[in-house]
Amino acid sequence: MPYIDLNSDVGESFGNWVMGDDAAIFTSVSSANVACGFHAGDPSVIAQTCRDAVAAGVTIGAHVGYRDLAGFGRRFLDCSPVELADDVLYQLGALEALARAAGSSIKYVKPHGALYNTIVHHEAHAQAVVDAIRAFGSELPVLLLPGSVALAKAEAAGLRPVAEAFADRNYTPAGTLVSRREANAVLHDPATVTANMVRLATEKTIVAIDGSVIPMDAESICVHGDTAGAVAMAAAVRAGLESAGVTIKSFA
Amino acid sequence: MPYIDLNSDVGESFGNWVMGDDAAIFTSVSSANVACGFHAGDPSVIAQTCRDAVAAGVTIGAHVGYRDLAGFGRRFLDCSPVELADDVLYQLGALEALARAAGSSIKYVKPHGALYNTIVHHEAHAQAVVDAIRAFGSELPVLLLPGSVALAKAEAAGLRPVAEAFADRNYTPAGTLVSRREANAVLHDPATVTANMVRLATEKTIVAIDGSVIPMDAESICVHGDTAGAVAMAAAVRAGLESAGVTIKSFA
Amino acid sequence: MPYIDLNSDVGESFGNWVMGDDAAIFTSVSSANVACGFHAGDPSVIAQTCRDAVAAGVTIGAHVGYRDLAGFGRRFLDCSPVELADDVLYQLGALEALARAAGSSIKYVKPHGALYNTIVHHEAHAQAVVDAIRAFGSELPVLLLPGSVALAKAEAAGLRPVAEAFADRNYTPAGTLVSRREANAVLHDPATVTANMVRLATEKTIVAIDGSVIPMDAESICVHGDTAGAVAMAAAVRAGLESAGVTIKSFA
Amino acid sequence: MPYIDLNSDVGESFGNWVMGDDAAIFTSVSSANVACGFHAGDPSVIAQTCRDAVAAGVTIGAHVGYRDLAGFGRRFLDCSPVELADDVLYQLGALEALARAAGSSIKYVKPHGALYNTIVHHEAHAQAVVDAIRAFGSELPVLLLPGSVALAKAEAAGLRPVAEAFADRNYTPAGTLVSRREANAVLHDPATVTANMVRLATEKTIVAIDGSVIPMDAESICVHGDTAGAVAMAAAVRAGLESAGVTIKSFA
Repeated sequence: MPYIDLNSDVGESFGNWVMGDDAAIFTSVSSANVACGFHAGDPSVIAQTCRDAVAAGVTIGAHVGYRDLAGFGRRFLDCSPVELADDVLYQLGALEALARAAGSSIKYVKPHGALYNTIVHHEAHAQAVVDAIRAFGSELPVLLLPGSVALAKAEAAGLRPVAEAFADRNYTPAGTLVSRREANAVLHDPATVTANMVRLATEKTIVAIDGSVIPMDAESICVHGDTAGAVAMAAAVRAGLESAGVTIKSFA
Repeated sequence: MPYIDLNSDVGESFGNWVMGDDAAIFTSVSSANVACGFHAGDPSVIAQTCRDAVAAGVTIGAHVGYRDLAGFGRRFLDCSPVELADDVLYQLGALEALARAAGSSIKYVKPHGALYNTIVHHEAHAQAVVDAIRAFGSELPVLLLPGSVALAKAEAAGLRPVAEAFADRNYTPAGTLVSRREANAVLHDPATVTANMVRLATEKTIVAIDGSVIPMDAESICVHGDTAGAVAMAAAVRAGLESAGVTIKSFA
Repeated sequence: MPYIDLNSDVGESFGNWVMGDDAAIFTSVSSANVACGFHAGDPSVIAQTCRDAVAAGVTIGAHVGYRDLAGFGRRFLDCSPVELADDVLYQLGALEALARAAGSSIKYVKPHGALYNTIVHHEAHAQAVVDAIRAFGSELPVLLLPGSVALAKAEAAGLRPVAEAFADRNYTPAGTLVSRREANAVLHDPATVTANMVRLATEKTIVAIDGSVIPMDAESICVHGDTAGAVAMAAAVRAGLESAGVTIKSFA
Repeated sequence: MPYIDLNSDVGESFGNWVMGDDAAIFTSVSSANVACGFHAGDPSVIAQTCRDAVAAGVTIGAHVGYRDLAGFGRRFLDCSPVELADDVLYQLGALEALARAAGSSIKYVKPHGALYNTIVHHEAHAQAVVDAIRAFGSELPVLLLPGSVALAKAEAAGLRPVAEAFADRNYTPAGTLVSRREANAVLHDPATVTANMVRLATEKTIVAIDGSVIPMDAESICVHGDTAGAVAMAAAVRAGLESAGVTIKSFA
């Protein structure tokens, strides 16, 4: 019986600013990447998001990022490894307190935005993230890009790296993401996306941008909830997976 | 054998800005009120402060404040009780993660600055602080002003309120602090301060501004470390207490 | 030939967070209260808002607020008058540079949120705002609540206070706003609102909550653009005013 | 009659945190690089700094930086060129308002920290800084590193780039700064530093790290005020220059 995880970013509102339709996305996903206040999410937003995740039976993960509210964590920040490790540990602790008050706790970590992309290749920042998770002390699994430096370092440190695929992204025949600078980087047709993700969950392959079928060993699928179209896409992917006999459940 | 606690604010540096001589004050106090990032303290400062406290054998407390770096938490912020409770819980969790990584954990809570002063009388903010500490789940003792609304609410909620005295402040015959707007609000002579604190620790009385001897039941004495004079005063108080046979130890 | 100004808050997005439909509201109003970065608005949002205002022929005003992004400037912050005056002057200068780069400049000031409400009665904060505007040096008119302390202080300082009415708010027979804590504080029917605002512009009266017709001498009407309903309401008010022969133009 | 400018960073306190001894450094320098609030300096600090500069007869320059208080602007932030240009323009406007209230205005611009170092080579960020200064509209001179990309771009844009030398830094025979990662990057002997700066001002040469005398065409000398030693060094440099018949005056 095949199964897979669906994860999405939530808790990205801040103060008076609302982002995403978390209530809607909670009906589709099994894992919630909850912003921790450094790139998005204020304490009350985080607290409410944790309560909503618990009510929806969705697993809570820590979506840790660079300290950059103005840039939403999407801009590389050349902090020192020590600063980064401490920033990540601070975020983990903050979210943990709010998740516990909601009756749960952090079950995994996913680096956000520029941090996620940077630690695909940046040795020192990758190690800092791994060090912070180990210092937190719960041996949490980490959602990462397959083939990334961070994934290798997490594994070397005794953490459990979890590879994820992106539902709405095209892949090269080599199994890497087609750059967003290219046309066709992003897939928009729910049927195509759903078929590809069913293939991933049931056969551990996907169809690359050139039509070739390539291996893809991912335990989780990242979907989005920031637009109405994204929410509908997530619902379609979940429905398609369930129709194909795939169980949606957290990897954690 | 009498004993008392000495507490001081630490970890108040931020980024490139240094505040206080934490290393010096750690040689005098038994309890460290560690800033949690909302009014002072960044994650790396907090992490280092926790390691230093552990190395010095000083107990770690959470110095929680309003979200106001520009005002150092010294300005009343009319946030909602829910926002305040979530802000406090977020700070507690963040510090806890860094304290645990340093080999310890939060042993008590002390509200900072405007928050400390506000919850002397502000029912809703006092309750929010109490609610946050209870939500954190460890039944932590709370350092508060004797006679404050917050102290009553902490007690009613089953927390352990700990009354503190201020070494360098003058008291009215009624046992309240002489307002800083008055002359003689602050004591500057180490010998006078030390004698008064020895009296407090050994007889549970102090000499008020009018010379009368009044009862004062405090388990902790607050000293400062932000100036060279303050550090010397703290050292003098500790030496005086020890000479009088008083043991300095945490209440927690 | 009667005329009146329509003003609305714009430029309230921040980083990745979008707020309001500024493009839509610019088709209805004559004055744009542009956030200055302390409660909302980052420099790129402000720059774009200024360009859009200029393109739409809408007058730029400075929407200055307390330094509180997390609270969107809606929480009273007990800063000192000197801090407040400097904060306001800083915001005025920042917006001025971006407005000038867009080919215009600040033509008026409107305090935002908690600051607007506070200076209805808070002498020191009202004076600080007035002092900052005078220090800025352009004798800018200030949009304020009729009868407020701030309005009196602005007048005393030689500034030009401009009284405004709120299109969607109910008024007491005494001419003050019905508190938001009361039922019927907010009006939802565009026809009612429009009729009331036409009455205001043409007869300088409005219908209060008890049905009585009371005098109201306002040079500007505040409308909102943060929801689709608000944008439609603003468009209805403008259309109604124009149909009644009222010219919509800035007071500045 | 030779003359040269002495510049130093000031206004770098923030809220309750004090940095540097601005009063002392104002007695030595002719140009004040005033922090603008993005990496250091809050509005009240900036306002007071401007008043002090005016009182001391020191020229005000804008020390613009990346938006990164926690990192003091010393960490590269990969913002977009548009974001950077708008951030710089916002800072210029904010400082201008406070400088004008103090009776002066911005006379030049100096990028700070990571921004200064980045635009030595980063084309897009260098152009963004230049664009912002031009958008500000006053054709302000810009203090920059000789040979930098930013200097070339400033010149190409019709701005006046002003090359500066660093009093306490060693230079390679090629005229570039010895990296801080090398031993002897920083000079500590006031006599050596002073002699070198007198040579710079009178002969337009300096002694490089290998003892060779190399040409150095700088109109300004950067000194520091953040430590007691730095303040003393600045005073020594000024005294030495004046003894050698060099007039200290702003380039602006």
